[in-house]
Amino acid sequence: MKTSEINALTAPTHYIESNGVSFAYRRFGKPSAIPLVGFQHFTGTLDNWDPIILDGLAAEREIIIFDNAGVGNSSGETPDNVLAMTNDAVNFIKALGITKIDVLGFSLGGFIAQYLGEQHPDLINKIIIVGAAPQGTKALHNFPQLIGRAQEKEPMEIFLYIFFTSSQESRNKGKAALQRLYSRTEDRTKAATDQAVMAQMKAITHWGTEKPSISLKKIPHPVLIIQGSNDEMMDSDSSYTLFKELPNAVLTYYPDAAHGSFYQYPEMFVNQTNYFLNN
Amino acid sequence: MKTSEINALTAPTHYIESNGVSFAYRRFGKPSAIPLVGFQHFTGTLDNWDPIILDGLAAEREIIIFDNAGVGNSSGETPDNVLAMTNDAVNFIKALGITKIDVLGFSLGGFIAQYLGEQHPDLINKIIIVGAAPQGTKALHNFPQLIGRAQEKEPMEIFLYIFFTSSQESRNKGKAALQRLYSRTEDRTKAATDQAVMAQMKAITHWGTEKPSISLKKIPHPVLIIQGSNDEMMDSDSSYTLFKELPNAVLTYYPDAAHGSFYQYPEMFVNQTNYFLNN
Repeated sequence: MKTSEINALTAPTHYIESNGVSFAYRRFGKPSAIPLVGFQHFTGTLDNWDPIILDGLAAEREIIIFDNAGVGNSSGETPDNVLAMTNDAVNFIKALGITKIDVLGFSLGGFIAQYLGEQHPDLINKIIIVGAAPQGTKALHNFPQLIGRAQEKEPMEIFLYIFFTSSQESRNKGKAALQRLYSRTEDRTKAATDQAVMAQMKAITHWGTEKPSISLKKIPHPVLIIQGSNDEMMDSDSSYTLFKELPNAVLTYYPDAAHGSFYQYPEMFVNQTNYFLNN
Repeated sequence: MKTSEINALTAPTHYIESNGVSFAYRRFGKPSAIPLVGFQHFTGTLDNWDPIILDGLAAEREIIIFDNAGVGNSSGETPDNVLAMTNDAVNFIKALGITKIDVLGFSLGGFIAQYLGEQHPDLINKIIIVGAAPQGTKALHNFPQLIGRAQEKEPMEIFLYIFFTSSQESRNKGKAALQRLYSRTEDRTKAATDQAVMAQMKAITHWGTEKPSISLKKIPHPVLIIQGSNDEMMDSDSSYTLFKELPNAVLTYYPDAAHGSFYQYPEMFVNQTNYFLNN
């Protein structure tokens, strides 16, 4: 297969060993000095990235997505705190021999992005944070209850409930996004185990209750923050708080959108993110 | 001169009569079904538009900028309220025989944009609002004092004080923007008269004290809101309030930026605005 034919739907899953963990990852796109590495949401795996977004970004740079320790097709145990997840991710990146990355962190991945910026500034070039919040965000105290309510629904409804608003237009865009997420038919990843689910739930809930220890003001990197108007899980307001704390952030809110804002406006997100990374 | 050679620096000033007012305007750019009409800030005239922004937008659509009644090179009296300014602007647009426009409203122009969306929905396609606020924004109670403090400074410092933050980087971008605003050397407009200054000051201050009468929730158009992180005049938070009230708005904040956020990031603004208008 030629490089140009490798895209989000066809990129093979590779594995690399680091610190006793076998990390599953996919790597494709236009070769670039600095690859963009994607960090996934609660229970999310390689297959939860929107192909439109991956291919739109891969047109201008190399993309690496991976399953963090204990998630999806990666081995090991999922830690119950964001700092340990960050350290696992850094081990993975170093195992690839990469010394500089751009970061795309979605939800839980956006928490890891904050640790990466503060604790590994030399490894990071630019950061994109979608649907996330700073430490101490009160809305996250209710994370287990929100997930509990979601789990009572049918599988498609869980996705729509978490990531989209209740408007018909948002739901329709959600159904289209879900189709895209399932348009890759072969070499798919395993779902998150109970261990991963429980550990990530603890980490996310704790992110909301813990006293902020990350000094966001010290993150020197350009940051692009994306959020929906109605993210109940993270509380949309908390992205504005994050923006005010970061010294060099651009913040964009999308209309009638919930936690999955970039699933709802993939082309706008690609345009904005490519501009942000290229300039 | 060929159409392609007409740009922000060379576009001649035309005049059209409507309702007893001779409106000064410039019109150029790629012919398009819907022109983008620019509405200026307090005391601003045809020459206060950033040439980088005008030419960046004109590459993809027709641009019309004008001096509203009593301002710059237009005759007549400047009204002391935003609604009457809106009516004057509509008279100008109708005199040109135009039935549908996109709106770019900066500061005071962003107030007019809100009236246009609510009272003239059929005339409007999309709206861009930069550095503005909804009615009732308390920060505007101090508008005369802020302008008073600015007037005590040297001319260049007035511009930097109003539109940029106190950081060296923001100030440097401000000096570059000021150079661009003076790079058109011929056929420049007259400065605002005392009558225009006093009437606009009253209108802007009243915008902050008046009870909201515009029903923002009824504005059906796609709106793009742009604001800086540190706009003291409008209070940056008020753009988030505006975003929450409007049913279909995208909101972007730029870092380390004050009231003149789009002067500071003209290329990012052009990329985002062209995407917004094209899609």
